[in-house]
Amino acid sequence: MKQYCEMNREELIAEKEALTKRFEEYKAMGLSLDMSRGKPSKDQLDLSMELLKYSNYIEDGIDLRNYGILDGIPSCKRLFAELLEVEPENILLGPNASLSIMFDYIAQAYSHGVCGSKPWNQVKNIKFLCPVPGYDRHFTILEYFNIEMINVPMNSDGPDVDLIEELIKDESVKGMFCVPKYSNPQGITYSDEVVRRIASLKPAAEDFRIIWDNAYCVHELYDEGDTLLNIFDVLPEYGNDDMVIEVCSTSKMTFAGAGISALAASKNNIEDIKRRLNCQTISFDKMNQYRHVRFFKNADGIKNHMKKHAAIMRPKFEMVLGHLENELGGKGIASWVKPKGGYFISLDVMNGCAKRTGELCKEAGVTLTTVGATYPYFNDPNDSNIRIAPSLPPVEELDLAAQILCVSVRIACVEKFLEEKEQ
Amino acid sequence: MKQYCEMNREELIAEKEALTKRFEEYKAMGLSLDMSRGKPSKDQLDLSMELLKYSNYIEDGIDLRNYGILDGIPSCKRLFAELLEVEPENILLGPNASLSIMFDYIAQAYSHGVCGSKPWNQVKNIKFLCPVPGYDRHFTILEYFNIEMINVPMNSDGPDVDLIEELIKDESVKGMFCVPKYSNPQGITYSDEVVRRIASLKPAAEDFRIIWDNAYCVHELYDEGDTLLNIFDVLPEYGNDDMVIEVCSTSKMTFAGAGISALAASKNNIEDIKRRLNCQTISFDKMNQYRHVRFFKNADGIKNHMKKHAAIMRPKFEMVLGHLENELGGKGIASWVKPKGGYFISLDVMNGCAKRTGELCKEAGVTLTTVGATYPYFNDPNDSNIRIAPSLPPVEELDLAAQILCVSVRIACVEKFLEEKEQ
Repeated sequence: MKQYCEMNREELIAEKEALTKRFEEYKAMGLSLDMSRGKPSKDQLDLSMELLKYSNYIEDGIDLRNYGILDGIPSCKRLFAELLEVEPENILLGPNASLSIMFDYIAQAYSHGVCGSKPWNQVKNIKFLCPVPGYDRHFTILEYFNIEMINVPMNSDGPDVDLIEELIKDESVKGMFCVPKYSNPQGITYSDEVVRRIASLKPAAEDFRIIWDNAYCVHELYDEGDTLLNIFDVLPEYGNDDMVIEVCSTSKMTFAGAGISALAASKNNIEDIKRRLNCQTISFDKMNQYRHVRFFKNADGIKNHMKKHAAIMRPKFEMVLGHLENELGGKGIASWVKPKGGYFISLDVMNGCAKRTGELCKEAGVTLTTVGATYPYFNDPNDSNIRIAPSLPPVEELDLAAQILCVSVRIACVEKFLEEKEQ
Repeated sequence: MKQYCEMNREELIAEKEALTKRFEEYKAMGLSLDMSRGKPSKDQLDLSMELLKYSNYIEDGIDLRNYGILDGIPSCKRLFAELLEVEPENILLGPNASLSIMFDYIAQAYSHGVCGSKPWNQVKNIKFLCPVPGYDRHFTILEYFNIEMINVPMNSDGPDVDLIEELIKDESVKGMFCVPKYSNPQGITYSDEVVRRIASLKPAAEDFRIIWDNAYCVHELYDEGDTLLNIFDVLPEYGNDDMVIEVCSTSKMTFAGAGISALAASKNNIEDIKRRLNCQTISFDKMNQYRHVRFFKNADGIKNHMKKHAAIMRPKFEMVLGHLENELGGKGIASWVKPKGGYFISLDVMNGCAKRTGELCKEAGVTLTTVGATYPYFNDPNDSNIRIAPSLPPVEELDLAAQILCVSVRIACVEKFLEEKEQ
């Protein structure tokens, strides 16, 4: 088939008619399909039910059902330390969501500064760097605290570090959010060079902090996954030990709403965070920490468990990618990255066609992540990016949803070409 | 026996010698006893193990293991609504500790104000009222946010409302922390009149908020417990619907480190809080919410369960109170309230003798709540108040600990009288 840009008006009209016919058939099915959020499927949640069977809650003679142990229990700190390749003293365990760790960290910087720096609420025009497309909930946190977000485009090996190096010369740039492995939504893993360059940054702001959201650290789809350089191994070479706050969670390993989260950071940062935590709580849920330790045993246990997730996720990703290839390939109207892990497929359609695609999908009963949400302020300057979340729907539903998405993209693009021809 | 104030120097010296002999005997036992924190005992934690046996996590067709439902699950909101006698739409469920709800609420007021008011970080010299003696962790939150604390003395029926009415004429007074039932540490329940007067306050600050920490709402020691007027029933009469944020938790019903917490407030406040919550998390642990619903079933289920706690707690309270009566009664050196519920006994010793008592206890291997901690800034102006937490130690240990405490109080007071005689 021709690329759309090579079609004349008549060919475009014929294409639109054929597509509209298909679209109306889908619509008539009265579907309600959801590809909007990175929710695990029931099959995936079922993988962890054994977790709930442990009934002994004593560790080192301490009754874990009671108050206390602010940091998290030692065995669980060791588990995350092994997983993230840091020392247990660099780990703090958190509540059921790493999102809360991140929110609370920014809140803390806002009210109390970072390791003794001036509280951010007393500094004017604070800015954060946001690799785009990115994770909407990072943007929401920054918007809540009225922190200006600056887009940094993603390359195929991570964010544009040349641009970052320029931007951090501004002292009011206080940090950056990164999803360094299987990035949300593109599934890009930062190359060793990018990680190293990020570790070597020399920001003007002394209290510049990178939130290293390693949400998909073990979320491979294939035996041969991507490898992320451990930034904590590199930071000391540049005297930047305190620059990174890493977070992760078991939300997409065990239960999305009832997992445990962890933070990895330097001793200085850990102490800084504990000064707040000590006022905010007595401890997080240590029984759940203990269940996770008993269930996983060690980092290999986590990795083996994640292979079971991969077996469920892989066919879904491959099906969606197959539809994209078949329906959108070779037409010059869309591009995407084929991820080796993570939870999303990022689809870039022809400029000015993403929102219209979202509308069409909605009309046909398919819910996508709000188009624009992958950019700060919901403002995708090209109106081009769509995040696909294939995890939740059963395979049959996903099959239909992906087809409807593809037809919607094609209609939106045909309409756009026709519109341009009219002018 | 004579009151200490009637003793002459020789009698005091003889008394001191006798006491010191007993004290040295205790010391020689090399004990390590803890009456410092309101931790439930192992027996109490064992009462709730059935909670963990539920394995179905579907409610209204929703998989509670997954992301979502920010407010908390409907059945658990209903449970807390019944318990606190409000409507389910006035309930928000929280994380494992109501302390976090309170901290986060103050943090929110600090960064974003209250229901649209000026953020507290932009207002100078903010103050809070603190009924004293009170709960140290309330004070810690206020101190963290640099909010000045003003002592309000407790009467036998609640805080001194005359004084409160005066103090709230100052617009910079933004709120008050209260433990209205079985107050920490005195075990006083606010009378209906006090609750009504609090509900009718006319603070100068429009964003004045009372944190109504109903931590011990069902924590009776006897079948005939105290009754607390439901402040939400009274607030509307005075147009003060938005003035109170109530919190409670199951920390001292099920598992101290792994319970669930809840907040009750007006629609305006709930909306205000959800604007933040929506940036901070996706949901709290709904599986744990569900387990609690299945375990308790309803408010009566909670109340019946609390009778089992009472059966464990009552003998401990009675033993400590017995020792206080036997050893300190009639000597004019100490007073205390006999609580009908809650977790603490508040002991007021002769002025200037509380810290010395704490030192002596420590020397003999008994850990008390840090003396002074029941007052803001650890500053008990009379150096008189000691919080006793009888829940954690087994009865035999508590028996010893209470005796050591009494001997220590007596020694401290004898020393004080002797010192005064020297001058």
